[in-house]
Amino acid sequence: MKAKALILNCTLKKTPKISNTQALIDKAVVLFREHNVDTETIRVVDYYIPFGVSSKEDEKDEWPTILNKVKSCDILIIGSPIWFGVRSAVAQLVLERLDGTYSESDPKTGQFPLYGKVGGVIVTGNEDGAHNVAANTLFNLSHLGCTIPPNVDTYWIGPAGPGPSYIEAGGQKHLYTNKTVRFMVNNLVYFAKILKDNPIPTNLNELIEKAKQESD
Amino acid sequence: MKAKALILNCTLKKTPKISNTQALIDKAVVLFREHNVDTETIRVVDYYIPFGVSSKEDEKDEWPTILNKVKSCDILIIGSPIWFGVRSAVAQLVLERLDGTYSESDPKTGQFPLYGKVGGVIVTGNEDGAHNVAANTLFNLSHLGCTIPPNVDTYWIGPAGPGPSYIEAGGQKHLYTNKTVRFMVNNLVYFAKILKDNPIPTNLNELIEKAKQESD
Amino acid sequence: MKAKALILNCTLKKTPKISNTQALIDKAVVLFREHNVDTETIRVVDYYIPFGVSSKEDEKDEWPTILNKVKSCDILIIGSPIWFGVRSAVAQLVLERLDGTYSESDPKTGQFPLYGKVGGVIVTGNEDGAHNVAANTLFNLSHLGCTIPPNVDTYWIGPAGPGPSYIEAGGQKHLYTNKTVRFMVNNLVYFAKILKDNPIPTNLNELIEKAKQESD
Amino acid sequence: MKAKALILNCTLKKTPKISNTQALIDKAVVLFREHNVDTETIRVVDYYIPFGVSSKEDEKDEWPTILNKVKSCDILIIGSPIWFGVRSAVAQLVLERLDGTYSESDPKTGQFPLYGKVGGVIVTGNEDGAHNVAANTLFNLSHLGCTIPPNVDTYWIGPAGPGPSYIEAGGQKHLYTNKTVRFMVNNLVYFAKILKDNPIPTNLNELIEKAKQESD
Repeated sequence: MKAKALILNCTLKKTPKISNTQALIDKAVVLFREHNVDTETIRVVDYYIPFGVSSKEDEKDEWPTILNKVKSCDILIIGSPIWFGVRSAVAQLVLERLDGTYSESDPKTGQFPLYGKVGGVIVTGNEDGAHNVAANTLFNLSHLGCTIPPNVDTYWIGPAGPGPSYIEAGGQKHLYTNKTVRFMVNNLVYFAKILKDNPIPTNLNELIEKAKQESD
Repeated sequence: MKAKALILNCTLKKTPKISNTQALIDKAVVLFREHNVDTETIRVVDYYIPFGVSSKEDEKDEWPTILNKVKSCDILIIGSPIWFGVRSAVAQLVLERLDGTYSESDPKTGQFPLYGKVGGVIVTGNEDGAHNVAANTLFNLSHLGCTIPPNVDTYWIGPAGPGPSYIEAGGQKHLYTNKTVRFMVNNLVYFAKILKDNPIPTNLNELIEKAKQESD
Repeated sequence: MKAKALILNCTLKKTPKISNTQALIDKAVVLFREHNVDTETIRVVDYYIPFGVSSKEDEKDEWPTILNKVKSCDILIIGSPIWFGVRSAVAQLVLERLDGTYSESDPKTGQFPLYGKVGGVIVTGNEDGAHNVAANTLFNLSHLGCTIPPNVDTYWIGPAGPGPSYIEAGGQKHLYTNKTVRFMVNNLVYFAKILKDNPIPTNLNELIEKAKQESD
Repeated sequence: MKAKALILNCTLKKTPKISNTQALIDKAVVLFREHNVDTETIRVVDYYIPFGVSSKEDEKDEWPTILNKVKSCDILIIGSPIWFGVRSAVAQLVLERLDGTYSESDPKTGQFPLYGKVGGVIVTGNEDGAHNVAANTLFNLSHLGCTIPPNVDTYWIGPAGPGPSYIEAGGQKHLYTNKTVRFMVNNLVYFAKILKDNPIPTNLNELIEKAKQESD
């Protein structure tokens, strides 16, 4: 069965506005196709996703639709612009909503729904902040159960201060970004495969029981 | 062959001062032993490690000794206290010295020396800052080539403000920490095994060549 | 004329849900009153504030109402819960919307609308992340023009891992938090006064002109 | 009496190696001179400063010399390169050593030695990380007692990925950096003056006593 990559574009701009983050995502999509991996990109801001930390906040909440796609993908990528040096409010909203998955763990193993998935991050910004976005987002994904292979962040930023964005600045020709998007796709695809062949056996419930024995 | 875990304790205190971070490391060491994994813990501040970003800074530099151990381990763990909300100067020094490994990549695959290794982090502090230390440190390790399995950070911190440290506060009985140190050890050991059986095939040199073709 | 403090509560929960961050804000409000300072607290999530980085995003956008209050206050405080180790999506949304003020600088001095105001931050969370929220938020406010007096962050967090929140945990009796909320209010009030008496004379436009002379 | 600015250059490189951070510091020094402010720059790595969190770690410790200068300056600036997305190990070492000042508070007011001083930050790096360095460092300084005026960070970074540093890249002609170094110097000088004329009256000891009355 073909592996599937889900990319959540957390731009602040609704369709059909041009998203620089999408332009870098598009590079990854082409590369995933070369690896015979299906991709789906969701522009989160096009949906009605209320603030919250549960998997369903109200009747109109469209998060459950996205969450189902998250649960059925093999590779999960957060795409985010940088604003004020950190990830966008939409990216933060997505992470907060994923908090709800902690309480949907497998009854037997205690593993969260994102266990067994592989995580990556795609970032664009006029300037500074990519490491902050990548470090926090990958760490959050690893807490939620994702595996983080080496070099699974790709980003484009310009030099210090306000300036043109990825597309306008010709970032699509920037070697470092073109290099790292390839590292990312190759490693994500490889790890998705080996995790499918070697599912993580860790039984969190059993470990919790052991921990209780030596805790207050 | 038995897997080997190397733990770099980045406390500010030289031996024989009591290190709270070491007390939490000791918990991990016991668990690794149960998994038949050899461990070695190095208290970095006991060595002469000059500031710098190369693999050898001067004639007396003891970093090469530590770096050799880094290169021959399967599991690499950074243990750090929290100071001013972030990782210790010693932990930062260690990361900076690891920068030198970027230029020691495999001639054929372009992989850095830490490719194929699995990374984790152990943090203690009186209060606040564990996520910051863990997120940045795991992200840096992933950049250097390490794989980050799910839930490979364990930490103990007390509530807001100055207060007793791990040992004095009885943190060794804290359920959350005792739980996460188990998650960490189990997942690190499993991933070390599957990475040994399934070495990462990514050829970074080839990907760089492809990237060059579409870059300025 | 009495000084005015505006507190933006960036909880994810709409009124009338109980907000732990509000409970700590309430402590500050009482103290401001003792200093004869008027306060207004806005629970941002109760308003329709679309994502974006301008001062008006669409016809229904209620941000302009809040922004007017921001522009007319002397003391601006961001109150935020911690989610995934960082500030809430609502807090990030607020900062992003404040980005629009950069383009509303005074024609003569080039100063942004927040110049001359004094900034602070109030944070609550089950655990870890307060330094991250405070550091980034105060830094962002200083970029927007606010002055940051010493010790103008107050926060409550519990020990490592999930656990009860501020109210349930009895955080209202926590000495460190009760101490720092006083430091914060006193210093904010004092600096609001001295900035009113000694308005910042810096002419950013003139400095930009000088910088241009030695730049490409 | 003339105001005095102390700049701690936290480069990893000892004299006489060329420090890019020093090159940007030099710009600030020229501007301070135009404001009739005396400056002193210390390259911290040239001194023997052991790791630790006290004001004197051992007999040879040269920190007390630097600390005396810190205590007698009006404006304190941390200059730091970016390594692995965060401030240098030397900058972290400096902050850790400043921790010792918390216990040297004024017996009457409880104010820490850095109360009444004004803080700023100068950052250079090949790429990404300046916001992280600035946000954490300014926040730490504000905790130690410094006031943070608006726009007191200046930095130069290049675009995504490794690349030439400030001097080699011709960063000295970069408009954003040349602009912000002026904003920084002007605001630091102004605030040093108004703080000298209006010393912060907050009595932390009294506030602690009040806090105790409503705490456990």
